Amino acid sequence: MPELRQNPATKEWVIIATERAKRPEDFSSPGSEEKPEALGICPFCEGNEDLTPPEILAYRTYGTKPNTPGWWIRIIPNKFPALVPQGNIQRSKQEDFFRYMDGMGEHEVIIESPKHDQFMPIMEQKQVEEVFLAYRERYITLSQDPRFELITIFKNHGASAGTSVKHPHSQVIATPITPMHIRNRLEEAMRFFDDNGECVFCVIMKKELAFKERIIFETDDFVVFVPFAASSPFETWVLPKKHNASFQSTTPEHTKELAYVMKTTLNKIYKSLHNPDYNFVIYSSPCREKDLEYYHWHIQIIPRVAAVAGFELGSGIFINTVIPESAAKFLREA
Amino acid sequence: MPELRQNPATKEWVIIATERAKRPEDFSSPGSEEKPEALGICPFCEGNEDLTPPEILAYRTYGTKPNTPGWWIRIIPNKFPALVPQGNIQRSKQEDFFRYMDGMGEHEVIIESPKHDQFMPIMEQKQVEEVFLAYRERYITLSQDPRFELITIFKNHGASAGTSVKHPHSQVIATPITPMHIRNRLEEAMRFFDDNGECVFCVIMKKELAFKERIIFETDDFVVFVPFAASSPFETWVLPKKHNASFQSTTPEHTKELAYVMKTTLNKIYKSLHNPDYNFVIYSSPCREKDLEYYHWHIQIIPRVAAVAGFELGSGIFINTVIPESAAKFLREA
Repeated sequence: MPELRQNPATKEWVIIATERAKRPEDFSSPGSEEKPEALGICPFCEGNEDLTPPEILAYRTYGTKPNTPGWWIRIIPNKFPALVPQGNIQRSKQEDFFRYMDGMGEHEVIIESPKHDQFMPIMEQKQVEEVFLAYRERYITLSQDPRFELITIFKNHGASAGTSVKHPHSQVIATPITPMHIRNRLEEAMRFFDDNGECVFCVIMKKELAFKERIIFETDDFVVFVPFAASSPFETWVLPKKHNASFQSTTPEHTKELAYVMKTTLNKIYKSLHNPDYNFVIYSSPCREKDLEYYHWHIQIIPRVAAVAGFELGSGIFINTVIPESAAKFLREA
Repeated sequence: MPELRQNPATKEWVIIATERAKRPEDFSSPGSEEKPEALGICPFCEGNEDLTPPEILAYRTYGTKPNTPGWWIRIIPNKFPALVPQGNIQRSKQEDFFRYMDGMGEHEVIIESPKHDQFMPIMEQKQVEEVFLAYRERYITLSQDPRFELITIFKNHGASAGTSVKHPHSQVIATPITPMHIRNRLEEAMRFFDDNGECVFCVIMKKELAFKERIIFETDDFVVFVPFAASSPFETWVLPKKHNASFQSTTPEHTKELAYVMKTTLNKIYKSLHNPDYNFVIYSSPCREKDLEYYHWHIQIIPRVAAVAGFELGSGIFINTVIPESAAKFLREA
């Protein structure tokens, strides 16, 4: 059973992932990660369905059976989950100085295509729409589970972004806690709202659209830009124009437009930076705080072109070697 | 001139490092970092003093001239500084939505040895003592400059820890702001103190010494342990037993003991994990808050054996695949 532990000095939670636990000795030689592909067999490819845990959901052709070919999107439990769907949601006793709880949660993999060599930037538009519709569906389902506080949807592309599995996939983790990282964001946004009566993200968007120089492009419902204080080169934000705190608010039509926006943005990054490793994360309000006036769901894309070093770890101040206005111009023109 | 920019949504500061700025095109091919050693010449080696900016301070043999051989510790301005010692310390106008200021600060390199192939874990004890005495001297000097709010001393060892320069060196950055990362820590520690009347780090130390299983070793004045909620495998904390908020409080004798403790800890990591990349950071209170009852200076060592992926970036929850008690036992017995 994994465990969630809270740092008593910072109140930050950490997952001690016993299901993917390694013996300390495993770190003595580099490259000890599980690599299913090392065997030459990809468990995410069509035809290899029996190499993964049984599917939770799949978008598949009428009449085909679960866990057999015929799907175009397949959602499975992570074989080495950070959190597991069993266990108790109670924190340890209040009088315990070191606070912990069962590593209860959900950790799913969204296989984005039956084909091994597809990547979101070059996938067919229709397929990317299906991926985002799957995000939406899992988000809505998981956020209704009263045990979960926060749903995080994210993608790791490439080794330096934290994955060794090439087959295109994203992940969803549902946690029974709202971490400090999110609480701090909510708190700052709330303060701004209480001072100004406006959502800080709505104001950012308005200011960016007026200033123009950091905008990459916009559509009817979304704005894509490099933020004023981008923490790394080519960090990019995707914001829905309509105020909504939760990703849950997206309609299917809206989700398809988002898929177009994401594919276009990732394609610009892919072409101009030559397929860099990258992460993206959907930031959304906690499950039971979906109508907040002061928070605004958004996507952050981080191409992993710069190392995080001791100064960033120790101060939280990131050093960005590309001027955000130049990064935006470069991507805009890509 | 570099620029400090604040993210209006999170209040986090970012350095836009124009002195080390790259054109966006430079990212199109990997490995575009400045690598002085690519030329086969190390600017940090004895005899190559003219390849670096003039030294700020050096520990050298009597009678030898600045910027010539004869030194055993040499401190120079970073040739590609994140912040520069000129400029204005005023923030931009309060009515500006996007807050920024000159990238004013100090960014120094501490060359830890005239020899290229030395590493702190295997250096002579005497030399490590000199390195830590140099940290202390620079800390005290810089913290007296009224323009600086925070002094961060840190070390990057290896490419994944953010350095491509092999010659052993550490860095010091003095910033004109106290970042959210530190403010959040101070605030949590203050809350704990106001509730309990004790420093949370003092209590952590007491609990860890009583529990024993996460202790690596202790000396008269220091405790070395893997924290309860270690955020990555083998994360290690070094805490001084005596309560002090600021690194400035260390006496020279104390500093030598710290050097012994750090060399011993790093040697255990070096041997048992086969010279992994790592960072360490000295966490200290802001310069003008050196007598805080509720904060406690300490060193965090992070071997870079695990990738930071999308989930960590998006939720702030780290996934640690090694149980802290096992990591401590492994290092204790190394």
